[in-house]
Amino acid sequence: MIKLNKVFNSFEELFREIPVNDGMTISFHHHLREGDAVMFQVLKSIQKTGVKGITLACTSLMNTHDFIADMISEGTVSRIQTSGLKGKLAAMALNGGMQEPVIFRSHGSRARAVSDGELKVDIAFIAASAADMFGNANAIDGPNAFGSLGYGVWEAQNAKKTVIVTDYLSRGILRDISISQSYVDAVMIVPAIGNTAGVKEGSLKERSNPRDSVIAADVAKTIINCGIELDQSGIQMGSGSVSLQVGRYLSGYMKERDKKFKFGLGGITQDLIDMLNNGTFESLLDVQSFDPKACNSIRNNKNHHEIDVNTYANPLNRSSAVNFLDIAVLSATEIDTDWNVNVLTGSNGSIIGAIGGHQDVAAASKITIIAAPLFRNRIGVIRKKVTTVVTPGENIDILVTDFGIAVKESRQDIIKNLTDNGIKVLKIEDLYKKCISFTSEPCTVRFTDKVAAIVQTPDGKVQDYIYKKV
Amino acid sequence: MIKLNKVFNSFEELFREIPVNDGMTISFHHHLREGDAVMFQVLKSIQKTGVKGITLACTSLMNTHDFIADMISEGTVSRIQTSGLKGKLAAMALNGGMQEPVIFRSHGSRARAVSDGELKVDIAFIAASAADMFGNANAIDGPNAFGSLGYGVWEAQNAKKTVIVTDYLSRGILRDISISQSYVDAVMIVPAIGNTAGVKEGSLKERSNPRDSVIAADVAKTIINCGIELDQSGIQMGSGSVSLQVGRYLSGYMKERDKKFKFGLGGITQDLIDMLNNGTFESLLDVQSFDPKACNSIRNNKNHHEIDVNTYANPLNRSSAVNFLDIAVLSATEIDTDWNVNVLTGSNGSIIGAIGGHQDVAAASKITIIAAPLFRNRIGVIRKKVTTVVTPGENIDILVTDFGIAVKESRQDIIKNLTDNGIKVLKIEDLYKKCISFTSEPCTVRFTDKVAAIVQTPDGKVQDYIYKKV
Repeated sequence: MIKLNKVFNSFEELFREIPVNDGMTISFHHHLREGDAVMFQVLKSIQKTGVKGITLACTSLMNTHDFIADMISEGTVSRIQTSGLKGKLAAMALNGGMQEPVIFRSHGSRARAVSDGELKVDIAFIAASAADMFGNANAIDGPNAFGSLGYGVWEAQNAKKTVIVTDYLSRGILRDISISQSYVDAVMIVPAIGNTAGVKEGSLKERSNPRDSVIAADVAKTIINCGIELDQSGIQMGSGSVSLQVGRYLSGYMKERDKKFKFGLGGITQDLIDMLNNGTFESLLDVQSFDPKACNSIRNNKNHHEIDVNTYANPLNRSSAVNFLDIAVLSATEIDTDWNVNVLTGSNGSIIGAIGGHQDVAAASKITIIAAPLFRNRIGVIRKKVTTVVTPGENIDILVTDFGIAVKESRQDIIKNLTDNGIKVLKIEDLYKKCISFTSEPCTVRFTDKVAAIVQTPDGKVQDYIYKKV
Repeated sequence: MIKLNKVFNSFEELFREIPVNDGMTISFHHHLREGDAVMFQVLKSIQKTGVKGITLACTSLMNTHDFIADMISEGTVSRIQTSGLKGKLAAMALNGGMQEPVIFRSHGSRARAVSDGELKVDIAFIAASAADMFGNANAIDGPNAFGSLGYGVWEAQNAKKTVIVTDYLSRGILRDISISQSYVDAVMIVPAIGNTAGVKEGSLKERSNPRDSVIAADVAKTIINCGIELDQSGIQMGSGSVSLQVGRYLSGYMKERDKKFKFGLGGITQDLIDMLNNGTFESLLDVQSFDPKACNSIRNNKNHHEIDVNTYANPLNRSSAVNFLDIAVLSATEIDTDWNVNVLTGSNGSIIGAIGGHQDVAAASKITIIAAPLFRNRIGVIRKKVTTVVTPGENIDILVTDFGIAVKESRQDIIKNLTDNGIKVLKIEDLYKKCISFTSEPCTVRFTDKVAAIVQTPDGKVQDYIYKKV
């Protein structure tokens, strides 16, 4: 007879049962984005114990995690592995404040790293909006429900120990179970896991402007005319204001022709849920909800599937959803004339973004479209060479800008289809020339030869380095 | 770009993609019980290819699998691992027709064996009543829906290759996904997976008689008075006619006192679903449905959970559901005065049953009750020594027969609670004496010293041997 008490009300008690030791690797997900309060509570409690040299393996880090900078300075945290970095931590990495280079991985690469043993997580602290006394957990019940628990599900299956951190303990067994009790060692009750208003913050805020409308119209036209049969196809459209408008164009187009996408993939917004409800999509595959309102849809609409990140994009999983994608629309901070794409650093060398699923989706989708303006704040988006290669040019097919559409030379099939349908197709060099006609040739940013961060490929090789600034 | 075609319409094509070779271990589940037609179709197709020396690792085998006896004779199949054996195969094992001993494992032990590497399944052929083109599968859609896919879910996660065998391919992504596409290599379409009428056949047919009513009344009385707080407790009651009646007694008792079981566990019958619906249970945890009607309940009632066999009873899973059991009511073909229980062989040495979850549940539950008549067809159920030890006496607490209730000496807590509540408690020796006063001392069955089968403990040691008959 093994009788378990899994529920803990204080970190002291929790750490007696599941000790955190010097040098351990612990992990967190970023479903709560700027609203996350779990990492703060856990790390502060760890700091109190005097433990040093923690490796922090996060699916991503936000501005709300600025407090970690001090923990790095005083030694509680030594290493960071993440998909993205912002604020103080980003500056710290570039300014030589970290002993070890940051490791940047895409969501798919991280799913791989925990499954192939490259990243051994000692304790996964998984924010969940609800749990029961057996350890089952989800992110759609409780006062701070945030939607899909897609990163947490896979983490729980792969970490040595899994602690669910929640502010809502269900008396009965949860009705919807995302993480099974079988993968949970403890349930830690905290006053609040965060503020779900923060889920929509950051890069996900809707900003609309005429330039985006031009780009969106051309992206939609490109998708419709590039030669893919859209009925029963799979699409990842992204979540910004361009994507929103692309979605509206496609909704109308599909409805008129009685066509449906088989599935929509990626971070799920209310717009995509609307498209599920109006029949544009047959299904949504939701690894991360970009709107807490997704909870209702996940709970009540059986065509809105929570998927774990292994099913989303692990390159070791031949059956991952990205492998069934026909079309992907992705963003870029920079793209170069060899089609390499940067989403992580700005042209001044700062770390400003996150890889997210960019590499994974681009590698797998039949057609990958980059939607970006020709320049932002007078800085050109098209370059001779991107500051950091995140997604290699071989996986990009089309660039749609506010000054025209370019298709890669090797995709003659797409060029023919678009041209036959009366769409003007440019070369990326044409767009580059147009770009520098406004911005002039960018000056080169100077770096030291000290590595600040390593950008991995999905399968764990080095894609590029980010160097410390002069 | 990896583009997958997972769907196969002929075994020839399937075996070109996923070859079956000499000496491989292949597996099947027994959710369809006597209605299973998948094993026949797969094995006949393998036989045609001329492959020899297959190890057959089944969660259980039934009378409908008699055809395998011929395949053993001609060499297609060489070894059998299972929870139970019947008909021709059972006779063959005892009569020396098999080269290697059969390995009997409980459901929990099998879940362990595939997860700790003792049992390496090369290809799992998993019957599912519905699948989609990405490989997602369930057992609640399609014309031959059979309920929980609990054995298949864990098998798919652990086998080297997983083939879903189905007769219903959904055009869209399945609404309810039991096995994720991430674990599926191929979907094989067959004309029919079986006849779901056969799910209820075999040991599950309801047979009612006055003796069962006497036992059931005493089991219910024992549960109510043994000292366990029933409100919010967990119970596994079994599925025979005794269990049915115990359930009805307990339903009334709990309702009157406004108590609810937190969960009911094990093979799920319509009676248990009725008890979920009338509020006796808060939740049902369903590793195997003993009635295809369970499909509707699983689909529509979020408190009816399909659980995989790892979550049911894997002894390596500290959080398995059996570890949260307060009360278990189990059966026996024999029980001896040292409280050892047999559920696999009859007193004549024949293999007539299956371990099922017997060992796992008895080891984990706070209180384990054996419900059995004193004798069956004039053969005594209580013996000096059981023919085969399946569940060791240390894990059994109470025996309820039609001639009284015995409690193990070491459970003075239970003895006191029952006695205080006016229930007469006997010693098992008293019941043994009563038994042989009707049947007289049983004669000894003679065996050779050749091992016909090995009965494992849940953690993979030898619990007992079954010997070939003289």
